[in-house]
Formats: sequence, C-alpha cells, structure tokens
Amino acid sequence: MNEPILITSRDNPLLKRLRLLSQDSMAYRKQGQVWLEGDHLCRAMLARGQRPTTAVFTERGWSDAADAMRVACEHRVLVSESLMAGVSGLESPAGMGFLWDLPTRPAPDPAASTVVLDRLQDAGNVGSILRSAAAMGFGQVLALKGTAGLWSPKVLRAGMGAHFALRLVEGLTLDDLRPLAVPMLVTSSHRGEFLHRSELPWPCAWVMGHEGQGVRPELEAMASRSVRITQPGGEESLNVAAAAAICLHASAAARALPL
Amino acid sequence: MNEPILITSRDNPLLKRLRLLSQDSMAYRKQGQVWLEGDHLCRAMLARGQRPTTAVFTERGWSDAADAMRVACEHRVLVSESLMAGVSGLESPAGMGFLWDLPTRPAPDPAASTVVLDRLQDAGNVGSILRSAAAMGFGQVLALKGTAGLWSPKVLRAGMGAHFALRLVEGLTLDDLRPLAVPMLVTSSHRGEFLHRSELPWPCAWVMGHEGQGVRPELEAMASRSVRITQPGGEESLNVAAAAAICLHASAAARALPL
Repeated sequence: MNEPILITSRDNPLLKRLRLLSQDSMAYRKQGQVWLEGDHLCRAMLARGQRPTTAVFTERGWSDAADAMRVACEHRVLVSESLMAGVSGLESPAGMGFLWDLPTRPAPDPAASTVVLDRLQDAGNVGSILRSAAAMGFGQVLALKGTAGLWSPKVLRAGMGAHFALRLVEGLTLDDLRPLAVPMLVTSSHRGEFLHRSELPWPCAWVMGHEGQGVRPELEAMASRSVRITQPGGEESLNVAAAAAICLHASAAARALPL
Repeated sequence: MNEPILITSRDNPLLKRLRLLSQDSMAYRKQGQVWLEGDHLCRAMLARGQRPTTAVFTERGWSDAADAMRVACEHRVLVSESLMAGVSGLESPAGMGFLWDLPTRPAPDPAASTVVLDRLQDAGNVGSILRSAAAMGFGQVLALKGTAGLWSPKVLRAGMGAHFALRLVEGLTLDDLRPLAVPMLVTSSHRGEFLHRSELPWPCAWVMGHEGQGVRPELEAMASRSVRITQPGGEESLNVAAAAAICLHASAAARALPL
C-alpha cells in the first residue's frame, strides 16, 4: 500500500468537498457521498463490510488509529489539525474520517420490520429513532419527503452508526408505502388501545410523525391500528423520539416474551 | 391595569437582562430568573398557578395573545419585532415571553417517584427526559452536579412545559441522594434482569447516566436493582433519552396494568 499523501492547502479539491459535505446538510444528495467523522462512525461502516473511497487522518489520528482503520482503503491522506478543523462539523474535530460513496438507493422491502418517518424535522430526533430502530431489531427506515436528510451530518452523528445496520430509503411519497405488506401501526395521543395492553404483530411498520403536526391524516388512514401510549401525568405529548423508543421497544419485548 | 409600556432602546436594562438569559445557558443561576419564550411555555407556567414578573410582547404578539396571557402580570412591555429577535434564542422569535422569578430551590422529596440525572450533557436529552418524566407521572427530577442546567434555555425548550409539572432540584451530590426512600433502579447494557420481564416497584427512582460514561459506579452501587433493556438488534446502546422513555413508560404501564 502506498504512503499516505500529505495535503497542505485548504483549497485542495478533496478538502473543499469535505467542507461542503460537513457544512451543507443536503450536499450528500448531490454529491452522492458522505463524510464520516470520527472513529466510531467509521468503525460502524467497516463493520458492515463497507469501504471508504478516501481516509483522512491528522498526524495524531494516524498514530492513534487501529490498523483496520489505516488500511481501510488505498487512498489515504494526512492533514494538519487546523485543516481537519476546517472540514469538521464537530466541536472537537476528530483525528480521522472517511469519505464514502453512498450506495445506490435501495427499494423499500415490503416485508421488512419498518419505521416510517413522516416529515420529522429535528435531526437529533431522526438520529435517535434510527438508533432505537437498529437496537430493537427493525430492518428498515422509510422517510417520506420533508423528513430531515437521513445522511445529513447531524443525523449521522445522532445515529451513532445505526445507519449501517438499516435499509434506509428517503424522499418517499405515500404511494411508495402502499406495497408494504406488514401491518402499519400509528401512535395517537387520544385514540386506540393502550400500547401496554396490546398484542403487537411482528413484523410491523411503526409510523412516527412530524414534531408539531403528528402523522398526516391520509397516512393515519392507511394504518391498520392506532395505539396510544399511557401518559398518567397528563402532559400533552412525548417527544417523538421518546415515543418511538417506547413503541419499538414494545415490539422487541413482545417478540422476546414467548421465549 | 396600566397600559403596556413601550420599550424602544436595546440598551434598556430589561432587554439587557433578557439577552443575557437567552444567550448564557447558566445565567439563570446567578440572576434567579428565567426567560420563557413563546405561548406554549408561558401557558404551561400559568397553568401551574405561577405568575411572571414581566410580560413582553411584540405588537403582533399582543394582538394574538389570549386575555389570560395579557393580564398575567401588572408589568407589561411592548417591543418591536427586531428588539424581540435580539433577546430571543429561537430561530423564529416568538411574539411574547415571560420573565419569571425562579422559586427557592426545593429540597428533594425522599418519597417521590423520581428520575436521577447523573451528569447528562446534552440539553435536548435532558429536556426530553423531563418531558417523559412528567408524562409518565413521575414527581421529581434530581440532577447531580455536572448535568446540563435544568432551567437553561435549550432544556426549557426541549422540556415543552414539563418543568412546571415537576419538582426539580439540581447541583446535587451523591450524599444528597442517600435520604431517598424509594428503590433506586439503574439500567445496564449487560447486567440485571430484562426490563420487559421485571416487576417494577412504585414509587421508584430511575437513574440515567452520562451519554458516554453511563452511571458512575458509586451511584450504581447505591441502586437496589440493575435492569437491562432488550436490544435484539445488537447495537451497542440506545440514546439516553430513548432509554429513559422506555424505562419510565414501563413504570407507568406497570402501575396501570392492575386496573
């Protein structure tokens, strides 16, 4: 394998590209590439058999890196700490990162255990839901148009590697959901049976809605069941990522109980 | 009641104070006051019988406001949209807000259903947990030193009014928790019985730990039980606010089931 190449100019085309990807949350869609910062995300990607196109290290990052990270790809680059800071979206820039070609967008799997996101706005919420979905054994997340970009830097960060454990499809319309062959469940604050008394089907598709407006009525109408989360404190609603965690865990627990 | 007073200078002492409170997440501790932006938070505060010291409106905010908001206190102020924007921490500044004197810090209630926060860093996580705690009927949240400020603007925003439904005590040490008379439960990723197979006591105290390091060992040793959340997907951990939602809901569901 060749020696890593030293880059010293902030005008280098690679660094320009990384800057764009770290600063513009939607740039990944045009570029077809994602900039993965830090050991944790890069490791999660390698663990799923993926390979970066370029690996970027600071000197310290290079000396701290595990061998698997150093030899992850042929094209390896060394930059100064300040150049790394310039392409970082983190408060404390990482010592390494991977540039990765996004695979071709997969088609939704009609039979998979699924989470549907209906126009969720907050990147932290979306990332947290991806993380819960992966942890609870769901296979795919389908994001309707208007949802925060699944591969945007903030969602990637909040997802903590969950992206690589899931089939992710975004930019979908309601019609794209019609082929789903698994029962669709929506949460409601005021209708349906209580989650903790429900027998939950598996696989299923949980639908999570916009932070303010919830699930749009046309989508609610497509669902086979409405389920509500008990809220004895009488507050008006839970954060959507908290509600998702509760629902996805209930599905995982229902699967586990018969064992 | 007097007419609202028009303020036109950004150097007005009230506006300086609001600017400080909106920009410095810890300023509320020195000032003993909180700046509540927007109809939702202000309403949540009034609904709990609290009263602001000053109510601030833009012209549009004034004409949109419900009567209860307009007459919430004697000292009412009108400002331009741009002055309001200058004291706002929101992307879209609200048309109204309340300045509120924080009540004297309460003592922990040893018998209350409780959530303990051990050095949680992320304001969004803390706010989400407060919201889940209120929704699930918990009575108090006890934050150990090193946790994000409970009354900081970001936590207030993420809490969506839950602050006013809870007894909140912060800046605590481990010794302050020793008088707790309710069983303390910690979550672990690898030890203890599974949550969904557990019989949960009520009231209880759930302990949630630092995003990276989890609950510190000394505190874990004080707990009467370790409980783990099933994660069939095999991901390494859930977001702490997601884990909290799952645990607090399990407690609420366990209380509700016998009915």
